[in-house]
Amino acid sequence: MQVTVDGVPRELRTVWLEGGVVKLIDQRHLPFEVRIHEAAELESVATAIEDMVVRGAPAIGATAAYGMAQAQLQRVDLKAAAERLRKTRPTGQDLFFAVDYMLEAAANGEDPVAAAERYAQEDVDRCHAIGIQGVKLIRNGAQILTHCNAGALATVDYGTVLAPMRLAKERGRRFFVYVSETRPRLQGSRLTAWELLQEGIEHAIITEGAAGHFLGRGEVTLVLVGADRIAANGDTANKIGTYAKAVVARENRVPFYVAAPTSSIDFDLASGAKIPIEERSPQEVLHFDGHPVAPKESPARNPAFDVTPARYITGFVTEAGIMKPAELKRLLQPATPRSKKTTKKAPKKRR
Amino acid sequence: MQVTVDGVPRELRTVWLEGGVVKLIDQRHLPFEVRIHEAAELESVATAIEDMVVRGAPAIGATAAYGMAQAQLQRVDLKAAAERLRKTRPTGQDLFFAVDYMLEAAANGEDPVAAAERYAQEDVDRCHAIGIQGVKLIRNGAQILTHCNAGALATVDYGTVLAPMRLAKERGRRFFVYVSETRPRLQGSRLTAWELLQEGIEHAIITEGAAGHFLGRGEVTLVLVGADRIAANGDTANKIGTYAKAVVARENRVPFYVAAPTSSIDFDLASGAKIPIEERSPQEVLHFDGHPVAPKESPARNPAFDVTPARYITGFVTEAGIMKPAELKRLLQPATPRSKKTTKKAPKKRR
Repeated sequence: MQVTVDGVPRELRTVWLEGGVVKLIDQRHLPFEVRIHEAAELESVATAIEDMVVRGAPAIGATAAYGMAQAQLQRVDLKAAAERLRKTRPTGQDLFFAVDYMLEAAANGEDPVAAAERYAQEDVDRCHAIGIQGVKLIRNGAQILTHCNAGALATVDYGTVLAPMRLAKERGRRFFVYVSETRPRLQGSRLTAWELLQEGIEHAIITEGAAGHFLGRGEVTLVLVGADRIAANGDTANKIGTYAKAVVARENRVPFYVAAPTSSIDFDLASGAKIPIEERSPQEVLHFDGHPVAPKESPARNPAFDVTPARYITGFVTEAGIMKPAELKRLLQPATPRSKKTTKKAPKKRR
Repeated sequence: MQVTVDGVPRELRTVWLEGGVVKLIDQRHLPFEVRIHEAAELESVATAIEDMVVRGAPAIGATAAYGMAQAQLQRVDLKAAAERLRKTRPTGQDLFFAVDYMLEAAANGEDPVAAAERYAQEDVDRCHAIGIQGVKLIRNGAQILTHCNAGALATVDYGTVLAPMRLAKERGRRFFVYVSETRPRLQGSRLTAWELLQEGIEHAIITEGAAGHFLGRGEVTLVLVGADRIAANGDTANKIGTYAKAVVARENRVPFYVAAPTSSIDFDLASGAKIPIEERSPQEVLHFDGHPVAPKESPARNPAFDVTPARYITGFVTEAGIMKPAELKRLLQPATPRSKKTTKKAPKKRR
């Protein structure tokens, strides 16, 4: 992604390895300051993940892959390194997958840096492919509503939701993005708006409550959100607030698309009813940017995700094409020569 | 309302006149501190309204009524006083009505304090009557979702949405309230949660995004919100975020009620399409408490209200009874002896 640092545009990824050091855009300081965080050894990589220098499942996966490569270069015991990294975020599917990927590469005697670079590049390619598919949905004059951050910062580059926008911008299409601020952690205001600014994409930040208003007034022509986990029937878990947008979009006949790699599909889950909803600390709701905003005696509920039933989802934008919820299961069928290339990594290999 | 000040419960109103001084609960310091703001003369009353010591149309109206009474006691020119107060909030229907009410009382030679007290008491009585009607909707085990603050603090006492809850609590009913925080000004977290705490009503603060989640999971049995303005057909303007909740409520067959005095109905407006939507400063979305939460170059949109079409509204809880949107127009018919008492002030007299 293009990032302007001290007035100079640079081409950066979310995470990379340079001179044996794992480097990351420090997302804790965004959108106010672009700082590059340097992790010179394993413990530093692990705490970078724990302290949310980096967030977003694919970005965390790539960070872990680079961390494993660095550990190998520094002759750290790989099993101990794997153990340490796995502990950083207990529910990180991509994290576990990346650690296993690197262990397997080491077992096969592969060069660790080459393996980590391949891992990261595959993520970039997957996001780029999502962009190629999704850009078809962004017509001139499109008014897109998005939620949370499914951008370059959540991946190695491009992002899922933001990849189609970046390609549309490169192709000279005119469009506008409503960025819902995404309480309680404000990933919309802090990260998505910042990324759109970097790419020069026209946008406005809105509160969650205003999203329905703009949908209802015909001022949104497309909703494009990411996914944390997709069940086999298409039910989709994503950042809290997604479900209401989907319902209001359908009520107003606005197409609602989910942009995500096929690796997000969990074919072992028949429906979204089985997706557990993480409930995070009430303090996130009771505070705003570190400042209390509610009576200290008041309780709060803070579900981190909600589940949008497949019936509200117009389609999924994946690296393997755009498909309706009912079409997801075709990814399970044996690859035909035509679809082999795009589906070879997904979804079984990543589960 | 019962307010605990320094550990001692006191029975307070939002605004009252005491020894010639207009006293107000200073809402700028809530929920962290209960301070009583004292306005000893006209200019001080006017700036209290301008600086949002008090907010909520009925509470502003009562403040203006007391301000007019005080001006008369202090032999301030009443026309100049009326002029000054009218300027404090340019779109305040209740404010204009209260000023006219006091001018008329003065023209009739009435005692100014008695007139202001009557004005305030009528508001209390109207809210109490809304409570009497609305309490029927709150069954044991109810899980209520509300939005913004339509509580005692927005009126002289009781509030509209909170009146039924307070009466239900007094009657020993068990129920739970989800308070949506209501960005950007957080009236839910700051004011509604504080009021519920004072009344000992069980509740949890949630983000806007989480409201849909709880509606979708069957964890809300009733939505109860206020109204800023109701069109003749029942379309209702209320705080931004109301519309999406109404759509998601209907989708999940959860009853959606609007609690408001009949004076909120504007029979001159055929539908909500004509209700202008105030757009407030983008800084409210981009900042909190003076702290930026978004890139300084990012624009924001900040509509203050949205319009919920009548088809999503199960009913209106008014001082004249609970009625469906299509039944509102019966309030326009000449009062029969039976309905005379409850409709005599509304709605024509207040327009």
